[in-house]
Amino acid sequence: MLREHTFDLPVRYYETDAQGVVHHSNYLRYMELARIELLEAVGFDYAAIEAAGVLLVVAKATVRFKSPARYGDTLRVWIRTERAYGARIDHAYVMKIGERIVVEAETTIASIDREGRVQRIPRELEIEEE
Amino acid sequence: MLREHTFDLPVRYYETDAQGVVHHSNYLRYMELARIELLEAVGFDYAAIEAAGVLLVVAKATVRFKSPARYGDTLRVWIRTERAYGARIDHAYVMKIGERIVVEAETTIASIDREGRVQRIPRELEIEEE
Amino acid sequence: MLREHTFDLPVRYYETDAQGVVHHSNYLRYMELARIELLEAVGFDYAAIEAAGVLLVVAKATVRFKSPARYGDTLRVWIRTERAYGARIDHAYVMKIGERIVVEAETTIASIDREGRVQRIPRELEIEEE
Amino acid sequence: MLREHTFDLPVRYYETDAQGVVHHSNYLRYMELARIELLEAVGFDYAAIEAAGVLLVVAKATVRFKSPARYGDTLRVWIRTERAYGARIDHAYVMKIGERIVVEAETTIASIDREGRVQRIPRELEIEEE
Repeated sequence: MLREHTFDLPVRYYETDAQGVVHHSNYLRYMELARIELLEAVGFDYAAIEAAGVLLVVAKATVRFKSPARYGDTLRVWIRTERAYGARIDHAYVMKIGERIVVEAETTIASIDREGRVQRIPRELEIEEE
Repeated sequence: MLREHTFDLPVRYYETDAQGVVHHSNYLRYMELARIELLEAVGFDYAAIEAAGVLLVVAKATVRFKSPARYGDTLRVWIRTERAYGARIDHAYVMKIGERIVVEAETTIASIDREGRVQRIPRELEIEEE
Repeated sequence: MLREHTFDLPVRYYETDAQGVVHHSNYLRYMELARIELLEAVGFDYAAIEAAGVLLVVAKATVRFKSPARYGDTLRVWIRTERAYGARIDHAYVMKIGERIVVEAETTIASIDREGRVQRIPRELEIEEE
Repeated sequence: MLREHTFDLPVRYYETDAQGVVHHSNYLRYMELARIELLEAVGFDYAAIEAAGVLLVVAKATVRFKSPARYGDTLRVWIRTERAYGARIDHAYVMKIGERIVVEAETTIASIDREGRVQRIPRELEIEEE
């Protein structure tokens, strides 16, 4: 599985709030998009994984909002898989505008079945810790 | 300042996602609502604070997603101010459906002015640590 | 099938925009909620209808935004099924704050199968024109 | 003022719903983005117009949802100013994926001041009907 991925994400006007900056809840959406783009960059199809009965749900997220992003800005989004083993996947994220850091974050993803029971992630998604 | 507050929040259909559960990004919105309801429960008006040039922005959020919420569920949202001093306010949150915990979270709010410079929170918002 | 339904919908802070009013796109979400509440008020379960292979999709919407709604306001939402026959359901909506009209709208819903082909709505949803 | 504008808009994963397609309410957001891009394409700055006390609010929207858009699709968005005179601006929109039409729409924008009173649009925004 590809370990890291970087892509550009232009801020959309309707994602900004009354202070003119991207509403902080949207960064969780950008992070979800980053996970999907990372999967797809190596030929995985998230819909297919889910159709096979593997639900990848966010169990924990920690986000540090360092500076604002505005309409007209383009975020450079970096995601890295830190660990993918057993029923758990850990990711780290950094979003920047130029050299300025906007967001740093980590998430833990849990792999469950349709009844909500923990289950191993598909073997081909695994990444051993270094 | 009121230290804690509890209120009921019915899940709205359009806040659920392809898995039929509340999309995890929405809990950051529920937490924002909790902060505003906590302020208003003691007669503060968030719009007035902002009009006075005090912007309260989320600097950090940690959220543990323990179990899902669905359309038809009503979340009982509890928020508590842990600390409010200097240019920083810390909150803790628990959301439950009945006795089942859905989300546990903490945030750190920073108080800034319109130019993004750190500034003290209004005196009347302060809560000393115990 | 129940022909009309009325319910109260408090505006949530995070549904307002940079002008401090409910963002106009949210009224389409309120209208979707109204359709679901109308169905459920007579014992239909939208998820069950969909599980049976009947997808009800919005084919057309006309919305007149007459006046704003703000955080703190509660909308009284009225919905009425104007026609439900063949593969099509027409609804009308009025949302008010007190006597003041906020939104008037109409939608046409199309009934399709999973391949996107037009199909009749379930018999029990039908309402003949008067 | 520029009369029409076309741009590409990739669908973002988090804008799709339980049926795997772009939620219909998002098209109103895409249309708002189209109006802003049209203004900016000729050097107008929407924030500056608003700072000058001119609020442009959607008074009416009619949207025909012809076919679905999915994650992975890129919408080609076309917008045209049909009329801009007095206190009113009319736009038409077509969104396509390749040759397939996804959405056709029209909106009427009203120009108001901060107290909600109708006011003329700025002279330089005017377009006479042909």
